Amino acid sequence: MDYNQLALDLHARYGGKITTQLRDTSELDRAKLSAYYSPGVGAVSQAIAADPSSLSTYTWTNNLVAVISDGSAILGLGDLGPKAAMPVMEGKALLFKRFADIDSVPIVLDVHTADEIVATVKAIAPSFGAINLEDIAAPKCFEVEERLKAALDIPVFHDDQHGTAVVTLAGLINAATVTHRSLVDSKIVTIGAGAAGTAIIKLLHRYGCRQIVAIDSKGTIGDYRNDLNDEKKALLGYVDRSAHGSLSDALKEADIFIGVSKGGLLTSDLVSLMAPNPIVFALANPTPEIMPDEAKVAGVAVIATGRSDFPNQVNNAIAFPGIFRGALDHGIKKITDEHKLAAAKAIAGLVETPTPDTVIPSVFDERLVPTIAAVIT
Amino acid sequence: MDYNQLALDLHARYGGKITTQLRDTSELDRAKLSAYYSPGVGAVSQAIAADPSSLSTYTWTNNLVAVISDGSAILGLGDLGPKAAMPVMEGKALLFKRFADIDSVPIVLDVHTADEIVATVKAIAPSFGAINLEDIAAPKCFEVEERLKAALDIPVFHDDQHGTAVVTLAGLINAATVTHRSLVDSKIVTIGAGAAGTAIIKLLHRYGCRQIVAIDSKGTIGDYRNDLNDEKKALLGYVDRSAHGSLSDALKEADIFIGVSKGGLLTSDLVSLMAPNPIVFALANPTPEIMPDEAKVAGVAVIATGRSDFPNQVNNAIAFPGIFRGALDHGIKKITDEHKLAAAKAIAGLVETPTPDTVIPSVFDERLVPTIAAVIT
Repeated sequence: MDYNQLALDLHARYGGKITTQLRDTSELDRAKLSAYYSPGVGAVSQAIAADPSSLSTYTWTNNLVAVISDGSAILGLGDLGPKAAMPVMEGKALLFKRFADIDSVPIVLDVHTADEIVATVKAIAPSFGAINLEDIAAPKCFEVEERLKAALDIPVFHDDQHGTAVVTLAGLINAATVTHRSLVDSKIVTIGAGAAGTAIIKLLHRYGCRQIVAIDSKGTIGDYRNDLNDEKKALLGYVDRSAHGSLSDALKEADIFIGVSKGGLLTSDLVSLMAPNPIVFALANPTPEIMPDEAKVAGVAVIATGRSDFPNQVNNAIAFPGIFRGALDHGIKKITDEHKLAAAKAIAGLVETPTPDTVIPSVFDERLVPTIAAVIT
Repeated sequence: MDYNQLALDLHARYGGKITTQLRDTSELDRAKLSAYYSPGVGAVSQAIAADPSSLSTYTWTNNLVAVISDGSAILGLGDLGPKAAMPVMEGKALLFKRFADIDSVPIVLDVHTADEIVATVKAIAPSFGAINLEDIAAPKCFEVEERLKAALDIPVFHDDQHGTAVVTLAGLINAATVTHRSLVDSKIVTIGAGAAGTAIIKLLHRYGCRQIVAIDSKGTIGDYRNDLNDEKKALLGYVDRSAHGSLSDALKEADIFIGVSKGGLLTSDLVSLMAPNPIVFALANPTPEIMPDEAKVAGVAVIATGRSDFPNQVNNAIAFPGIFRGALDHGIKKITDEHKLAAAKAIAGLVETPTPDTVIPSVFDERLVPTIAAVIT
């Protein structure tokens, strides 16, 4: 199916994807106008001035997420700027509404340095109940998220990092069961050390995995490298820092391959170097590191991709709606590693009997949001 | 009626006033998800990157206004900060939706200098189709609006200034008819030179009025004053700059009094100094400069106030929904003085037979939005 033409047609037909409505749908007469606006609304302002925590009682911030991007890493398309980012951010708002009944507002930023992004988001933060950062290029995204988490009293979550990591971990938990492995004792090779790759490595480490070899576009990430930026140096604390050598070297007897880099780089020959019945999460979009059919022929026991037209889709929309639903409902100020681990386990647990083709639940599974939200406490 | 308690009750019951909904209300299946989000949405991003003007074709910005405030001049309550401003801004969003079917998003700012406000609004501007500034203190509001109008390619409109000025002019046009006056030849006294007062003076001057005496909290604004800030010095070009003396001096034989200052300051004795059958627009809220009953006893021919419980309410919601409706529908980049004059005349024209108690149409008059929008071209 040509989703591109369908996308252009639907967007033009409806003039975008979201709209606002009034919560109180009864007739807005003069008395109600005097309560919802001047003069009565002044009493609400004064109540919030006296007790700022009542903002969530009296305003839509209680159910409101800002979806914020500077457009510097739009999908796999690179830096197309803020206006081109808008349809993606509005799409995220659609997912928030459809899956978790969360109101959200797409905010695209015409500033691009970490300092400017942080200053802008801090300036508008009182307008929202939580902040979802989206499609901000690495390594800038790490600094932006850390500084905003430290500065703000509402949840800040960079979904390209943590949403992907949570769903990946959920899938690996079930894939380990299917292949009769201990996940924490598995040898894991990751390729790609941008936003998603970095977050996956950190969350797997937090889960207990201690045999992770990380590879970026320049080679294996280890102590021998003298070209690592600060973020990649920090990764050395989460991976086998003594590792060096090529992708082939790393893959020898590896149990798990996780790709968040580019299509086609995992060949059948490379798969043959891995341990028997290996697990492959080939998450590059739109073309995975190896296509599922080829992977199965090469002996892969469980293959997951980022695509909706194959089984086991690693789709962030499995995780983020429930995580934000729980954070808003339970007044969570920070989304922690513990929350992410709990979310991953909750997602994995929704697959009652994991099989090679069902290690990850469908994004349309209606149990997802309430089950995840229940553990974000 | 106790609007304060009703306001608190309604806001808490509904958890705020606005919510988001999906434009396409049909079932969101996997194919539509692939068109509204990844991978199909990438084609929409690329279309906008290739032609930024198509942003309004493909995203909700075509019908979207940001309602922005730093909370420094909330209603008549002063500087209560951004969180306390939220219910007022959300109220404005409710008015936009109810009266003009315009989507809008309240944005409250945790920054307060003109430089910071301008930088923040410029940074988020690609997210919106137009910007309504609200409840920003004078004189900062003048600089903020001017700089944003110069920097942005979407309409920027400070409603506390221009909405009030447009409705005031509309009412005065009809009040002049009722009292058989020429408005441009009338002697006009204004008291209060904040956001609203300044804009009223400038718009009346633009309409053709040349006998305006302006008074602020320190006295008559004229060349003799050595304490005027830059904005008030600029006002000297619009008023009788040779004026000096007291309010009583100014009111002698005045045809029109316009108050945007504080309650009670126009006494019957002062009214008796004015020309026969004077016009009084006593717009201070919640207590007008003179109450309508007292004004009529004192001989005022037409009295208007800011209150909904008396005839002739100068309510911004009469003007701004139609002005923005027209600006969005007609792709207007700047809202000019000509637009404001046209809007005022259009509003005045909706009162077929002006009488002392009907110089201004009701905010519920359904002809307002289409009639005003038609002249914002």
